Amino acid sequence: MKKHNYSAGPCILPQEVFEKSAQAILDFNQMGLSLLEISHRSDEFVAVIEEARTLVLELLGLQGKGYQALFLHGGASLEFLMVPYNLMKVNGKAGYLETGTWASGAIKEAKLFGETLILGSSKEANFNHIPKGYEIPKSLDYFHCTSNNTIYGTQMKAFPEVDTVRVCDMSSDIFSRTLDFSKFDLIYAGAQKNMGPAGATLVVVKEEILGKTGRTIPSMLDYQLHIAKESMYNTPPVFSIYASLLNLQWLKKQGGIAGIEKINNAKAELLYAEIDRNPLFKGTAVKEDRSYMNATFVLENEAHTPIFDQIWEQAGISGLKGHRSVGGYRASLYNALPLESVQVLVDTMKALENKV
Amino acid sequence: MKKHNYSAGPCILPQEVFEKSAQAILDFNQMGLSLLEISHRSDEFVAVIEEARTLVLELLGLQGKGYQALFLHGGASLEFLMVPYNLMKVNGKAGYLETGTWASGAIKEAKLFGETLILGSSKEANFNHIPKGYEIPKSLDYFHCTSNNTIYGTQMKAFPEVDTVRVCDMSSDIFSRTLDFSKFDLIYAGAQKNMGPAGATLVVVKEEILGKTGRTIPSMLDYQLHIAKESMYNTPPVFSIYASLLNLQWLKKQGGIAGIEKINNAKAELLYAEIDRNPLFKGTAVKEDRSYMNATFVLENEAHTPIFDQIWEQAGISGLKGHRSVGGYRASLYNALPLESVQVLVDTMKALENKV
Repeated sequence: MKKHNYSAGPCILPQEVFEKSAQAILDFNQMGLSLLEISHRSDEFVAVIEEARTLVLELLGLQGKGYQALFLHGGASLEFLMVPYNLMKVNGKAGYLETGTWASGAIKEAKLFGETLILGSSKEANFNHIPKGYEIPKSLDYFHCTSNNTIYGTQMKAFPEVDTVRVCDMSSDIFSRTLDFSKFDLIYAGAQKNMGPAGATLVVVKEEILGKTGRTIPSMLDYQLHIAKESMYNTPPVFSIYASLLNLQWLKKQGGIAGIEKINNAKAELLYAEIDRNPLFKGTAVKEDRSYMNATFVLENEAHTPIFDQIWEQAGISGLKGHRSVGGYRASLYNALPLESVQVLVDTMKALENKV
Repeated sequence: MKKHNYSAGPCILPQEVFEKSAQAILDFNQMGLSLLEISHRSDEFVAVIEEARTLVLELLGLQGKGYQALFLHGGASLEFLMVPYNLMKVNGKAGYLETGTWASGAIKEAKLFGETLILGSSKEANFNHIPKGYEIPKSLDYFHCTSNNTIYGTQMKAFPEVDTVRVCDMSSDIFSRTLDFSKFDLIYAGAQKNMGPAGATLVVVKEEILGKTGRTIPSMLDYQLHIAKESMYNTPPVFSIYASLLNLQWLKKQGGIAGIEKINNAKAELLYAEIDRNPLFKGTAVKEDRSYMNATFVLENEAHTPIFDQIWEQAGISGLKGHRSVGGYRASLYNALPLESVQVLVDTMKALENKV
C-alpha cells in the first residue's frame, strides 16, 4: 500500500530523488564507480556542487545580487553558533525573535558572544503565534528570526523592516513559498525538509556583510573561508548534496518556488478547511499565523485518540504524531507531499465523524 | 570492466555497502519508506545509530572501558576546533606532533585557544617521515597526533608514552590495524576512508577527560552534550551513519580489525616490494614510516609519466594521482580494496619495464 508520509523531517522527497540517488550509489554517471567512492575533488562531483550552488540562487531569485550559496556541515544548530561568530561585533548586540524551540536554541548560542535582545516572544503561549508589535532598536549588529516553526505549526507571513542585517532560519519552509529573498542578508536551512536528506546545511549569504566583527573565527566556522574555498574547505557531505541537487532539479521542473507554492497552498487550505469544519478537531496555532508546512491540531475529545489513530494508520498515513511539546497531531506538508495524500488525511478525519 | 579504485577519500567501500544502502533508499527495512524520509527519532533509525555506536566500541576493543562513540557532523576539520574547546584549559597548553597538512590544520585551530607547542615536525622534509626523539614536557593539557598522513604516505608505527590526555586523529587508518586503542583518550576520524561515506565524523572519547577546562562550550561543539543526547543533539547525518553501520558489519564479518589487518599487510607488502624492486619507481616516504593505507611513489624518470598513466588507466585503475603537494602517485589501500586490485597495479608497474 502506498504510504502517505507526514514526517516532520527528515521527510518525504520526490520518488525520482530516491530512485536517482539510489542508482548513483550503484553507478554514478556511468563511471563504473559509486557516488560514495569518488573524490569530492573529481570533475564529476565538482560539477554537482557547482550546479547545486547555482540552482539555489536561481530558484531564490538571487543570482547576480552579491550572494553566495554554501553547502556546509552541522545542520541549522551549527548555524546558531556561526551566525554570531561571523556577525556579532565584539561588544556588539543582536536582536532575536523567539518563536519556538529552534529560535530559543539560536538565542542560547548568541548569548555566548554578546548582548542578545529578545525583541518578541510567544513562549508564554507555548509558541502558538508569531509575536507582533515589537520594537526593533537601532544599532543592532543583526536581526534574527525563524520563518517557520516546525514544532508549533506557526509561520511568519510578514517580516519586519529593519535597518540592519537580516538573518533568517528557513530550515522548514525554504523553497516552499515565494518571498523577496533579497530582503534577507543571510538565510540558513538544514537540508532535511524541502532541500534534501539530512547531513547538509544550506547557507545563502550576501558577501558584503561578512568580515566586519573584529573577531578571530575558527576555520570551519568562517563563512568567508567557505566562500573562498567554493564550499569545499573540507570534504563535504557528498551524498546529501547530490540528493539535494536532484531535489532542486525536480523543483525547477515543477515551475520553481512559484509553481510548488500553488500546490502547497492547495494542500494547506484543504487541510485547514477540514480542521475548521470538523467539530472533532481544532488547530493549535492562532489562525493568522498558521504554518503552510506544518499543520498542528488536536482532537477536541482525547478519548477519540485510539480510534482516530487506527483510522489513519489503516489508511497508510505515517509520521502524523505531534511533537511531544505540543501533543496531538502534526501534518507536515512539505513540497514532495502530493495533494492526494492530504485528501487521504482529510478523508480519515471525516471518517472519524461517522465512527464516534 | 571492473574498476580498481585507489581514491584517497572518499574511497572504495565494500560492494555490499553500496547495494544495501541503495536498497535502503528505495525501501528501508521493508517499511514502505525510504531511509531518507523517516524521522531520525523513529525506532528504526535509533536502532541504527545505537548499533553503530556499540559496534565501534566492540571493534576497537573499548567496550566497558568508559568510552562513548559519537557520530557527529563536520568532518575531522571540525574536530580540530572541538578538541581544544573541550580539552584545553583556560591559560592551558597542548602539545602537537606536526606530521602533515591535517596536523598543521589541527595546530592552527588549537592556537586560537591557548599555548600550542609543536613538539616535533617533519615539515622541512615535506613530511616524508614521522618525527622521533622529541621531548614531551610535563603539564600539557593533552598531546595530539595524527596516526596516518594520507597526503604524504606516512604512518605512526609507535606512539609515545605520555602522562597526559592522548588525542589522535585517525581519519585515514582507523579500523585498518590492531592497536591498543585504550591508550588513547580521544580518537576522531572523518568517515570517508575506512568507516563510510563522507558526511559523518566518528569521535570516541573517554568520558572522564571531559568537563575540566573551565570554558563555556557552544552546544554543537560540546562532547558532553552530545554524549548526554546519545549522539542525537540535532538531526544527524542519517545516510552516512547507516552506510557506516553496514561497513562496520562487513568489517566484523572479515574477522574485525585483526582479520582485515592481515589482508592490509599483504596488500601493502606486495606494493612496497614492487616499488623497491622496480628500478623505474621510488617511494617518497622514509621506509620505516611508510603508510600501509596510502603508498606514495614517483617515477625515477618523469618522462615515463604519459606511458605509465596510459598503462594503469587501461587496466581500469582510477584515483592513482598523487596529491598536488607531493606529485607522483598515491595508491590508497583502504580496507575494501581487494588484494587483486593491488596485483593489477603491480602488474602495470612491471609492464612499464617492458615498454621503456
